[in-house]
Amino acid sequence: MKVLNSYLDVDRVQAALPDKVLPGIFMRNVISAEDRVPNFRMRVVEFEPGASCPRHSHWWEHQVFVLSGQGTMVSGDKEITLAKDMVIYIAPNEEHGFANSTDETLCFVCLVPLAADE
Amino acid sequence: MKVLNSYLDVDRVQAALPDKVLPGIFMRNVISAEDRVPNFRMRVVEFEPGASCPRHSHWWEHQVFVLSGQGTMVSGDKEITLAKDMVIYIAPNEEHGFANSTDETLCFVCLVPLAADE
Repeated sequence: MKVLNSYLDVDRVQAALPDKVLPGIFMRNVISAEDRVPNFRMRVVEFEPGASCPRHSHWWEHQVFVLSGQGTMVSGDKEITLAKDMVIYIAPNEEHGFANSTDETLCFVCLVPLAADE
Repeated sequence: MKVLNSYLDVDRVQAALPDKVLPGIFMRNVISAEDRVPNFRMRVVEFEPGASCPRHSHWWEHQVFVLSGQGTMVSGDKEITLAKDMVIYIAPNEEHGFANSTDETLCFVCLVPLAADE
């Protein structure tokens, strides 16, 4: 068993896509391969004010629970406003992008399968 | 893509172990097999005041993020006080039990592999 008294106890690391660093976007790998998980792992993602992640896709899915802040998510011709308590499932190979144009950090839990590259 | 404006948009269902209903414990299956997830799924679990789930174990793991309320989790000789923003990983076959002896509902996100029975 692993117990973190707060997700903030895990240092945040810079987020990146394969071809670029993503300024203002950070991840806390709160349950990771180091914990010998068999199937999936948990990160807490932070988008600082002004941060954005361009549209991209990959073979793995995301399961997202929004903790705090606001922002937008785009996929195809959809634009979704993100807010606390929202739940989002992004299927494998589904295009998605995120942005935070507010003055507050957007924070969400994001689950991926164990073998995801990011 | 699936978007829920709030996890509360999904009706809660009674929780149970194989041999007993668990009074005061409810689950919202916010991302489930119906969404054709390949690997894992997301529930939001609520323990009303006074509710408890006895120690048990199973082949699947849990990944937990505490959203609100307080409670206790037991495993072996450990007793852990649960509070907002805590993260817990319960490994496959690891014994665990939960209780809420406060006057506020305990609420947490709980991920399981797709094939988990509960």
